[in-house]
Amino acid sequence: MYQFQCDYNEGAHPRIMERLMETNFEQTVGYGEDHYCEAAREAVRKAIGRDDVDVHFLVGGTQANATVISSILRPYQGVLCASTGHINVHETGAIEHSGHKVLALPADDGLLTAAQIREAMEAHLAEDGPEHMVQPGMVYISFSSEVGTVYSLDQLRSVSAVCREYGLPLFIDGARMGYGLASEGCDVTVADIASLADVFYLGGTKQGALFGEAVVIVNDSLKKDFRYNIKQNGGMLAKGRLLGIQFLTLFEDGLYFQLSGHAVAQAMRIRDAFRAKGYSFLVDSPSNQQFPILDNATMERLSSDFLFSVWQKVDEEHTAVRFCTSWATRPEAVDALVRAI
Amino acid sequence: MYQFQCDYNEGAHPRIMERLMETNFEQTVGYGEDHYCEAAREAVRKAIGRDDVDVHFLVGGTQANATVISSILRPYQGVLCASTGHINVHETGAIEHSGHKVLALPADDGLLTAAQIREAMEAHLAEDGPEHMVQPGMVYISFSSEVGTVYSLDQLRSVSAVCREYGLPLFIDGARMGYGLASEGCDVTVADIASLADVFYLGGTKQGALFGEAVVIVNDSLKKDFRYNIKQNGGMLAKGRLLGIQFLTLFEDGLYFQLSGHAVAQAMRIRDAFRAKGYSFLVDSPSNQQFPILDNATMERLSSDFLFSVWQKVDEEHTAVRFCTSWATRPEAVDALVRAI
Amino acid sequence: MYQFQCDYNEGAHPRIMERLMETNFEQTVGYGEDHYCEAAREAVRKAIGRDDVDVHFLVGGTQANATVISSILRPYQGVLCASTGHINVHETGAIEHSGHKVLALPADDGLLTAAQIREAMEAHLAEDGPEHMVQPGMVYISFSSEVGTVYSLDQLRSVSAVCREYGLPLFIDGARMGYGLASEGCDVTVADIASLADVFYLGGTKQGALFGEAVVIVNDSLKKDFRYNIKQNGGMLAKGRLLGIQFLTLFEDGLYFQLSGHAVAQAMRIRDAFRAKGYSFLVDSPSNQQFPILDNATMERLSSDFLFSVWQKVDEEHTAVRFCTSWATRPEAVDALVRAI
Amino acid sequence: MYQFQCDYNEGAHPRIMERLMETNFEQTVGYGEDHYCEAAREAVRKAIGRDDVDVHFLVGGTQANATVISSILRPYQGVLCASTGHINVHETGAIEHSGHKVLALPADDGLLTAAQIREAMEAHLAEDGPEHMVQPGMVYISFSSEVGTVYSLDQLRSVSAVCREYGLPLFIDGARMGYGLASEGCDVTVADIASLADVFYLGGTKQGALFGEAVVIVNDSLKKDFRYNIKQNGGMLAKGRLLGIQFLTLFEDGLYFQLSGHAVAQAMRIRDAFRAKGYSFLVDSPSNQQFPILDNATMERLSSDFLFSVWQKVDEEHTAVRFCTSWATRPEAVDALVRAI
Repeated sequence: MYQFQCDYNEGAHPRIMERLMETNFEQTVGYGEDHYCEAAREAVRKAIGRDDVDVHFLVGGTQANATVISSILRPYQGVLCASTGHINVHETGAIEHSGHKVLALPADDGLLTAAQIREAMEAHLAEDGPEHMVQPGMVYISFSSEVGTVYSLDQLRSVSAVCREYGLPLFIDGARMGYGLASEGCDVTVADIASLADVFYLGGTKQGALFGEAVVIVNDSLKKDFRYNIKQNGGMLAKGRLLGIQFLTLFEDGLYFQLSGHAVAQAMRIRDAFRAKGYSFLVDSPSNQQFPILDNATMERLSSDFLFSVWQKVDEEHTAVRFCTSWATRPEAVDALVRAI
Repeated sequence: MYQFQCDYNEGAHPRIMERLMETNFEQTVGYGEDHYCEAAREAVRKAIGRDDVDVHFLVGGTQANATVISSILRPYQGVLCASTGHINVHETGAIEHSGHKVLALPADDGLLTAAQIREAMEAHLAEDGPEHMVQPGMVYISFSSEVGTVYSLDQLRSVSAVCREYGLPLFIDGARMGYGLASEGCDVTVADIASLADVFYLGGTKQGALFGEAVVIVNDSLKKDFRYNIKQNGGMLAKGRLLGIQFLTLFEDGLYFQLSGHAVAQAMRIRDAFRAKGYSFLVDSPSNQQFPILDNATMERLSSDFLFSVWQKVDEEHTAVRFCTSWATRPEAVDALVRAI
Repeated sequence: MYQFQCDYNEGAHPRIMERLMETNFEQTVGYGEDHYCEAAREAVRKAIGRDDVDVHFLVGGTQANATVISSILRPYQGVLCASTGHINVHETGAIEHSGHKVLALPADDGLLTAAQIREAMEAHLAEDGPEHMVQPGMVYISFSSEVGTVYSLDQLRSVSAVCREYGLPLFIDGARMGYGLASEGCDVTVADIASLADVFYLGGTKQGALFGEAVVIVNDSLKKDFRYNIKQNGGMLAKGRLLGIQFLTLFEDGLYFQLSGHAVAQAMRIRDAFRAKGYSFLVDSPSNQQFPILDNATMERLSSDFLFSVWQKVDEEHTAVRFCTSWATRPEAVDALVRAI
Repeated sequence: MYQFQCDYNEGAHPRIMERLMETNFEQTVGYGEDHYCEAAREAVRKAIGRDDVDVHFLVGGTQANATVISSILRPYQGVLCASTGHINVHETGAIEHSGHKVLALPADDGLLTAAQIREAMEAHLAEDGPEHMVQPGMVYISFSSEVGTVYSLDQLRSVSAVCREYGLPLFIDGARMGYGLASEGCDVTVADIASLADVFYLGGTKQGALFGEAVVIVNDSLKKDFRYNIKQNGGMLAKGRLLGIQFLTLFEDGLYFQLSGHAVAQAMRIRDAFRAKGYSFLVDSPSNQQFPILDNATMERLSSDFLFSVWQKVDEEHTAVRFCTSWATRPEAVDALVRAI
């Protein structure tokens, strides 16, 4: 039974595993100050074409989100995000736990628009007593989004421009950054991300690493003392080199982007197979997550050979489900799925 | 220019002021352990017909809400409330500041239904990995609500029943409890409130006191160490007797309920005057807040003689506004308003 | 039985009570934006000789401390304070509740020294991995201190200088500011306080008001959005004018300082009476709190006619106790106490 | 240059690395619900001789401490701990970040005594107004301690008994649990730990794993919903099997305890070498951390061939330093060190 239910079913890319083995008995200092982390930071800087950014390696996404967001906001501020945003739905209130309201704006397609951000800011500023309400203090978006959609360069530029107009730092959750950048028709580059965001991360957990997210701080004013925030939030791995070795391997020669391309290519095959059979989709996704709407009979039939996620009931007879591909997806498994469809 | 924009424009009822004067040089112990507070607690217990409840006096509503809610919830839990709820909108994220998500459910009329609570709980329990989401840990409702509406006894019983079914403590924000109980057609008594809620408060700030809210803890399991919570949240008034004296005056012989009746009577006169002239309302309110929808010309005309709140733009030509009455509203001012309408 | 156990046994100065009565039915806007608050802010500015400061009125000291401190610190920072500091001992962990460690330094006499602050900063900066420890982010001192002692101008200048050297905002808790400034031999003026602190408050609760603390923000960088912090921490009084009226009365013509002088004069009489009889003191206090060390027999004898606080057991036979005077202390009660001593 | 400065210089035990390689392409569900985690939980239960405990795997120690402690305490409670405790010193205030005061009691030898706990509780209960102070809500101790010392069974029983007497859950930080249990002269077994603590963890990061701590919840009342706490604190690893595989390997056949024994044996050789040359120690440690006091010349000489930590300056001429051994310490490196001494 092949598993398509998420993009973290396997371990890590073999080159990562080999390097972990080779270096296993080397002695290094801890907490991300070893030479592998330093080399990995350089590799990430090179990959995004910026040598003026700070790079920090954290273990997971929820941790990265909470650490970044709570390091930016003032106590009375909240974070604007799409209603579908991971921080709004699937992190057990980690942001609220750090004291801040998630200011969710409706976005069934997973994408926040510049107009929504502007409207929220204008509404706040127009309040008679704005101090009675949470002040929007930053914007969080996901690239690709939680439902697989991807901002166009135009959309992203508009979001970034409105953020800068209102002085709102823009934070891009990149748990699936590679899959977003490799998505069909994407006109955004990682260099665009770095020039339009104030802080973002390049996800490793879902993209070839055992675990790890590389947080990139572009805006100088957000750089100071970030390591204190990491430590306080329980995110400073003692054997930090494990993160350094993984991100060095992923970024020193483009492996990260190759693996992303593979995942998207396999996802497109799944999408096309459903499309060819006339299935509709919950949302039109060009990336590694696909959300076909299945009738009950089909859902049952497919579930006898494949694992996938039940996403959302559409009506009594139909359910939207999720099929994920990843860096590790075997083409033969997709062959079998396509045949089954 | 008479002010109808809120229900805290004046000081306190004269009997309260007199008593504060008379007792001014008496020496008492602090922090709510004086004999006035003790007598006031007894008066409140008598007024609600329960001698088994704990009564604590806090200074204001935001403080009372944050103190009560954060004392009940486990770290990973949130509070279910109507989207219009004061804690969701007008408290600068005080609940999130204490670490908890406000789980807002849509309720344009200000009232949460038993069905909504059940649905939210069932949806949470049906999750594949519920621990990735905030767990609903209690329910917050307002009586009367932020838009003047009032639960019927049937509605309240249903809400309470579903809360007990799921083990959710029910907290009733009573900043306008008196106005709710005195509202037109209300079939709920304060004894009903005490038997259906786990904790609630009797608001003083908007109902005849200079300030103060009497928190009543009915559920034994919520009583322990509550004074620690008050102190930690900055709500333990050094000269606690100020609260004791006020609530003793309000509750020893029914003044609280008389004042509430007065406010509602004046509000009904305003409502009827608008109704008679064919104005519609944002919501049908039987209590001390009225939300007529005015055309621009009328709004401008009335605003030359009266202060009221702009609540919500309805369309280019119309705006919903708020007129509040209170314990202090002068009938002659309402006469003038009625004439102007 | 006369009460000397604290400095908040009575209500408020009669001129405050009269003014509250006179203005009781005046209608004003809420939340501190009325004309009394504005006039009070002006009066405070004039009294301290600075027209460039922000003045906010809060209800109590714990609330003021938590609101100010949490508005200044970054998440990973703590506040340096004397081990005797109110925030370290008697506020139920309100500062920790806001997420910050109180970095207490030993100070039996209630006073922090410039050398201690420097040492703490140097120790932190000398750490190999400082990000594993809480970063000192500000300094909190009390004037007068919790044990009645008072910084000399030289001491205060040194503390302020070292704070500025290390970029640490200096916050002075002035719950007993007047009593400190009026203390015997004090060479500090309120203008000195304003020029040496970044933020401080002038306490009302213990100095003639029913309640209230006037927070004065001197440092421009700490002024922004402070009202959001007040509201979020439950400290924005609906009928804010109550605070405005009180502080206007206290500061428009020097009443605050006269009352402080009265309290200290009475305290000196008590001190001198104990001294004359050869009693020693826990600490040498020139202000309104006196801490004589009594043998058990004397303690029992005095407690039959006077209330005072048991502070600290010294040995089997002796106990340090606290006698407080205040703006309201009757000279005849002190006469009686002196006779009893 | 051989590194003795900490016990996390290398990767993981080869058997762990091999198993990670072997299982790398197996597909499993995430978040600790895979069969490796289940098997690892069983192995841990077996190793400690209890089948009624909950076992959860977290990534690191700071995270484990903050997650456990914040899951237990009520908002107004703090955690009693030794002044040397990791949570008090080296976690950037993570506990305060979660809202709770660390109530540190002086303990230069790293060990808290039953008498200290009793005294702290009695002092709190004897307060006139205890609600003005943080209430001790649990006890945190470390086994072995941060300075290498180890509780005897008698000491541990006394601590546990006083905790139970006062209703304080006892939490044992076991980042170096194995090294403590294997320490010279230790009469405590892991079964004793499980019967005397309410919750504890078996550290992996410093004891043979790449990372990971196995939290064992013994007390039934602390078990509910713990996975929510893990997730909210950013500690739920997506590829949870990585933790399962590691702890299964460590505990299925006693590897954990063998590795611990190795580390302690090497540490004893270092200790004996220093002792033989007449060096004194900061503290008498029977476990894997040794704190000899070196004169400056010796310190300089040894540092040319070995890395160790500077711990604490003793006087102008002497410094206490730390030498750590671990599961990975090569005996030949210790040979060289012993020769150098």
